Amino acid sequence: MLGVPYDGGTTYQPGARLAPFHVRRVSALLQSHHPVHGIDVFRDLRCVDGGNIVFPPFDREAMRAAVEAEIRQLSAALVTPLVFGGDHSVTLPILRALAKRHGPLAVVQVDAHLDLSTAEVWGEDFHHGTVFRHAIDEGLIADGQLYQLGLRGPRGAETDDALARARGHHAVSADEIGERGPKRVCAEVRERIGRHRPVYVSFDIDAVDPAHAPGTGTPVPGGITAREALALVRGLAGTNVIGGDIVEVCPPLDHADITAHLAAHLAWELLAVIATRS
Amino acid sequence: MLGVPYDGGTTYQPGARLAPFHVRRVSALLQSHHPVHGIDVFRDLRCVDGGNIVFPPFDREAMRAAVEAEIRQLSAALVTPLVFGGDHSVTLPILRALAKRHGPLAVVQVDAHLDLSTAEVWGEDFHHGTVFRHAIDEGLIADGQLYQLGLRGPRGAETDDALARARGHHAVSADEIGERGPKRVCAEVRERIGRHRPVYVSFDIDAVDPAHAPGTGTPVPGGITAREALALVRGLAGTNVIGGDIVEVCPPLDHADITAHLAAHLAWELLAVIATRS
Amino acid sequence: MLGVPYDGGTTYQPGARLAPFHVRRVSALLQSHHPVHGIDVFRDLRCVDGGNIVFPPFDREAMRAAVEAEIRQLSAALVTPLVFGGDHSVTLPILRALAKRHGPLAVVQVDAHLDLSTAEVWGEDFHHGTVFRHAIDEGLIADGQLYQLGLRGPRGAETDDALARARGHHAVSADEIGERGPKRVCAEVRERIGRHRPVYVSFDIDAVDPAHAPGTGTPVPGGITAREALALVRGLAGTNVIGGDIVEVCPPLDHADITAHLAAHLAWELLAVIATRS
Amino acid sequence: MLGVPYDGGTTYQPGARLAPFHVRRVSALLQSHHPVHGIDVFRDLRCVDGGNIVFPPFDREAMRAAVEAEIRQLSAALVTPLVFGGDHSVTLPILRALAKRHGPLAVVQVDAHLDLSTAEVWGEDFHHGTVFRHAIDEGLIADGQLYQLGLRGPRGAETDDALARARGHHAVSADEIGERGPKRVCAEVRERIGRHRPVYVSFDIDAVDPAHAPGTGTPVPGGITAREALALVRGLAGTNVIGGDIVEVCPPLDHADITAHLAAHLAWELLAVIATRS
Amino acid sequence: MLGVPYDGGTTYQPGARLAPFHVRRVSALLQSHHPVHGIDVFRDLRCVDGGNIVFPPFDREAMRAAVEAEIRQLSAALVTPLVFGGDHSVTLPILRALAKRHGPLAVVQVDAHLDLSTAEVWGEDFHHGTVFRHAIDEGLIADGQLYQLGLRGPRGAETDDALARARGHHAVSADEIGERGPKRVCAEVRERIGRHRPVYVSFDIDAVDPAHAPGTGTPVPGGITAREALALVRGLAGTNVIGGDIVEVCPPLDHADITAHLAAHLAWELLAVIATRS
Amino acid sequence: MLGVPYDGGTTYQPGARLAPFHVRRVSALLQSHHPVHGIDVFRDLRCVDGGNIVFPPFDREAMRAAVEAEIRQLSAALVTPLVFGGDHSVTLPILRALAKRHGPLAVVQVDAHLDLSTAEVWGEDFHHGTVFRHAIDEGLIADGQLYQLGLRGPRGAETDDALARARGHHAVSADEIGERGPKRVCAEVRERIGRHRPVYVSFDIDAVDPAHAPGTGTPVPGGITAREALALVRGLAGTNVIGGDIVEVCPPLDHADITAHLAAHLAWELLAVIATRS
Repeated sequence: MLGVPYDGGTTYQPGARLAPFHVRRVSALLQSHHPVHGIDVFRDLRCVDGGNIVFPPFDREAMRAAVEAEIRQLSAALVTPLVFGGDHSVTLPILRALAKRHGPLAVVQVDAHLDLSTAEVWGEDFHHGTVFRHAIDEGLIADGQLYQLGLRGPRGAETDDALARARGHHAVSADEIGERGPKRVCAEVRERIGRHRPVYVSFDIDAVDPAHAPGTGTPVPGGITAREALALVRGLAGTNVIGGDIVEVCPPLDHADITAHLAAHLAWELLAVIATRS
Repeated sequence: MLGVPYDGGTTYQPGARLAPFHVRRVSALLQSHHPVHGIDVFRDLRCVDGGNIVFPPFDREAMRAAVEAEIRQLSAALVTPLVFGGDHSVTLPILRALAKRHGPLAVVQVDAHLDLSTAEVWGEDFHHGTVFRHAIDEGLIADGQLYQLGLRGPRGAETDDALARARGHHAVSADEIGERGPKRVCAEVRERIGRHRPVYVSFDIDAVDPAHAPGTGTPVPGGITAREALALVRGLAGTNVIGGDIVEVCPPLDHADITAHLAAHLAWELLAVIATRS
Repeated sequence: MLGVPYDGGTTYQPGARLAPFHVRRVSALLQSHHPVHGIDVFRDLRCVDGGNIVFPPFDREAMRAAVEAEIRQLSAALVTPLVFGGDHSVTLPILRALAKRHGPLAVVQVDAHLDLSTAEVWGEDFHHGTVFRHAIDEGLIADGQLYQLGLRGPRGAETDDALARARGHHAVSADEIGERGPKRVCAEVRERIGRHRPVYVSFDIDAVDPAHAPGTGTPVPGGITAREALALVRGLAGTNVIGGDIVEVCPPLDHADITAHLAAHLAWELLAVIATRS
Repeated sequence: MLGVPYDGGTTYQPGARLAPFHVRRVSALLQSHHPVHGIDVFRDLRCVDGGNIVFPPFDREAMRAAVEAEIRQLSAALVTPLVFGGDHSVTLPILRALAKRHGPLAVVQVDAHLDLSTAEVWGEDFHHGTVFRHAIDEGLIADGQLYQLGLRGPRGAETDDALARARGHHAVSADEIGERGPKRVCAEVRERIGRHRPVYVSFDIDAVDPAHAPGTGTPVPGGITAREALALVRGLAGTNVIGGDIVEVCPPLDHADITAHLAAHLAWELLAVIATRS
Repeated sequence: MLGVPYDGGTTYQPGARLAPFHVRRVSALLQSHHPVHGIDVFRDLRCVDGGNIVFPPFDREAMRAAVEAEIRQLSAALVTPLVFGGDHSVTLPILRALAKRHGPLAVVQVDAHLDLSTAEVWGEDFHHGTVFRHAIDEGLIADGQLYQLGLRGPRGAETDDALARARGHHAVSADEIGERGPKRVCAEVRERIGRHRPVYVSFDIDAVDPAHAPGTGTPVPGGITAREALALVRGLAGTNVIGGDIVEVCPPLDHADITAHLAAHLAWELLAVIATRS
Repeated sequence: MLGVPYDGGTTYQPGARLAPFHVRRVSALLQSHHPVHGIDVFRDLRCVDGGNIVFPPFDREAMRAAVEAEIRQLSAALVTPLVFGGDHSVTLPILRALAKRHGPLAVVQVDAHLDLSTAEVWGEDFHHGTVFRHAIDEGLIADGQLYQLGLRGPRGAETDDALARARGHHAVSADEIGERGPKRVCAEVRERIGRHRPVYVSFDIDAVDPAHAPGTGTPVPGGITAREALALVRGLAGTNVIGGDIVEVCPPLDHADITAHLAAHLAWELLAVIATRS
């Protein structure tokens, strides 16, 4: 586990740089036994908190370089990285490092937003809304293997998801997750991915409804519940997860740490998925 | 769009007068394309923020007169009004103005409460709990065409909804919305209303569960979710909406603007419904 | 109704001692008519607020002795006690007093946690995580008649629920409540209990998701919604409820009183269940 | 002690109607011995909490009539009233009732604002900003015997305090209180009042800086500290206080009850002043 | 008045980009007459809200270029700029633009921190902690004419203020302001500046104690009070203020808008100082 | 530095057990150079964070035993302990351990309350209100060498401070600190203590006004400011401080961490005092 205290890629409300400190603090409530999978997470996995990756908080190039270098090194040492952002722009250097090792990945992106934006929108090409466009453009994601779960809300234009559709990627709105249930959605995702393809899980906490995750910078009402969010991660057991992140937790906007607790539990579910890898 | 910063009709916790300022502020997160309807809201509609209607905040008669006059004028100019309250008592003068033009209306009231109270309860006949009794009594609502969606919680007496039942109006509790789903509830409502009857949508934010809308003055646990709320409005596409309001947002009780964001998104969904009018 | 302002049995975040003051304050929003059961709660029941039970806040033995004595006296006077905690450790002396009168009880425990912990975990045998182990060990609960509803999240060990399983008790996770719906879950519970067996309802507010009940000391994301919580209590109508409690409401962590309002409404639903006893 | 849960006279942020409930709740921290005066407050005075005065919350005339009647009755029974507002408009009927009995009063008004506004400003003559103009106009305050302490901030016009100056009233800004110290300010006030003249103390909590009293509806930065506020009240010992109020506490804007605690302590200081009456 | 919604130069907690929206909102409480100076601010000055300066929020060079260009243009049009940050790094381009017109300036920097840091500390040369080092290095401030008021707290090294001392600049700690009083401190500052030298006022809200200004990103306990802060600005009347800013207001950390209200009142005091220019 | 996460001795609002986690987190803002003393704190002292002392959170005897044992061991190793509570009851075992080594101590208790209560008041002899009575009774404090700074507010009885007066101890109210200034108060204290007598500093954060320290369980309005609090600690330089604590910080009641930041800065000032020991 690594923290990336960076929020310089935020378009609306910053503060996600503080998330690693708070998620660690509330992780005191986690325990080891997973009653659904029937495993003992912290016995089956050797988990290490590797602290935060260090860089000047104002410098996006330095952030990307530091994160990519660190993940490459861990990956070379056969360590599975679990990263706490920071905003979603921290995901790009992780994907670069992991794709270098594993080739094009399957990516499960749980998110309210597409994050496929172009440079024109904000007059800048690298921020939290362009991550997956870069990842697709750079060939980090295998065709048809981007799973965008939890989408909703207004978009800039009809063509916002054109790139993803052109590559055959898969999208499930928050409404559909509610209607069909996370178990069926995950069964479908698992089937499309298969047991062996390397999978990266990028969980943007704004996929979750602001009621359950008020502490985030670009909230969109109408999201999935915490119960659905946990089930979505849990439902990836049986795939070959080779890394993941939980991003966009913004503590200054949180209340009673409920977003931080949710992030810690999502991390625990993801660790459990990793622990079940065959 | 018009604001009515009035909360002098509040029985419990006031503060809704501040809502227009906060809903406007957070509306910065809205965008134009609606991915479900496949339309571009701010291209298909000419939207204008008409500011707030002005009156002394202590004077209910002045409020009612100013609101009715303003809406009548807009209506005469073929403008579809979308009003941000303020408490629910701002709805009565709007209905008066619109019924004067359109005749008895269909009214979709999304609400935790009946708002059919009589003068005896609070020793006063005009406040946020008596709006729809007056509207029925004054013939502003067509028989059988009041849809009360999201009802729940304790009531004063068994006879609280007698007036509505006597006129053949329609009620769906929050529990039923959860059990049957907002899509089926809306299909039924649409069928009863038909494509041409003029419809007014009055959305009291306390219809939504306090988890999703903590910023409201008379919270009732067990409400609809934000996802259901947005779907209820979206599901009115195909009816002839001639006006609407979003009321009872109380910013001093909100957290991280989540209630204000929800109100802004509900307004956007309502604009999209208006944009789909044939 | 009685308050027990005690939180000396809390393992993580204390503050539940303040709950009785806040739940009373917000109970101003309750009314008398129950539209689902079709009864008038405060006409059908004679309800008295008996104030708080008095003891030094630092002394768990004194708390247990005072609570047991008070409940025994009330029970002898044929009063049905409804207790506001305080943390969950206030439930043990209530069960002792009631089982002394009624014999082994059916207990409906709505809770995120098992509360079956042993003395080894915290180096102490009496706290909010050991209540139901003691109750089982002391024979206060009839075999097969503990209903644990709302369970979820990490556990200490695979054997945490061994005691409950050995005695044939019944557990339903939060996920199952969501999938099957509270009505079906309650129908099953009612059938297993029967109409005449004395039932105690212990509602730990952390059964509810932190979105709906942020004011609690050991939050676990992924809980039941407020709507499901209210339906679970409502669904016990037809059983012979002889007492109940609502515990672990922690006002310093609450926002806009939403947890307190939920607790007040849960109490009202429980009173309605008691009012429907044949 | 009486509560007047009314905030219909508020120009900016309402919520003061909720103050009596919260000030009572936190008054649990008060004790009896006053170490500066060396008296035992609750032994020397017979204090009774007379509950709240009842009227429809929307009706200013009803509020004024109910308050004036109640205070007149208490005054006739030789009871010294201590009133918790509510907004500042609750003070006018109290002054009417007391001046009827005692003749023109000395009034110590601790406040950020003059409250001498005219009907033109808000299009309405009776609200929280016009109280002392009415009191002067109606002859309820003896010439030269209005003490306005804590004034500061922007005003509407140069002539805002013309009425007070014309009648020879006394004003001390928050800055002056800070520079000269509350003891010297009070010595001067006491000397001008004398030992026997009947004095009414009206404490608008917005006199205090928003740091110490965030829970108020029209905050003005740069106010007196809590220490100065308590000293101002304490320094009135030796005058003949025949009644008082603490108004404009707005709980929805408070944090950690610090404004409510301050209000409770100010009330206690005022009781101590009353207890020292010769 | 201009907003600069930028916080990419923040070292600890970001969020200051949101300040212009909130300060504008609460400025509704301001009025026109200044009772200490005896002037009518909004009559004596023609004030215009010029909106926010536009640039991508991630790009410090773009921010600096946009701000410098805008201020240069305004200055050329003889407009006195009053800027709402944003973090303190927005001040550098303003000083560049103004010094280009007026020559080396006197600068009154009210601040908890020196902001004289070097590139080594954070691995980056342009952020909110290096502003005044750049300003001195670039000759924007006349020797001996930087006034740093409100300093306190831990520093990185003994040499942190070496640059300021070498240039004969003037520093007054928060403790000294409390001991000597803002009036005497200002008299001294005014005397050193003289009536004609162009003065820029840069008010970092963290100069104020966190009790009075909790909404700021790098809080330092032990600051000046709101009363002292307002008096410091007011005490500059008689100098030739040619521009100013209020920076580091961080709304996500504010409570009940008290920091925003203070910022609005500080701006009003600064406008009053400008209005008194001979 | 050691944490003692215990609040089982709290009479009103608990939560102080969480303080060590939050004070550590915000200590990131501290730096090394002290500009008033002109020393480099973290160079002159070898500071180690010794983590938290471990015990069951429900067990006061276990807490006292664990704390006393730990402090005795550290003291034997010539380590100067700086302890973060927890509530004030954690101080007693520290004093026992230190007095065992150093003999009767001088104790500087900065506090709103006397903490000299007897067992009768709460029906229990060991809690946060009885600490200094025990310390005096057990001979841990030298006669005349208890300094109680910051006292204020209502007391239970005239005799509450009788024990302290009988032993010649020294008390300075918050009002006196404000009137005379912390420097003069400290000069007096330093003179009475002398340079060599071992001094223990126990800082109860409720000495500070709730505006500056809202995060505390038994707030008393009218306290010292943060500036005065820091000056009081700073003014002890020149005495022989052999240990200290900062207690009663209650994070659930804090806002924007301002109380935690103050506690961290007070600790830093205390470390600086220790660093100046001759």
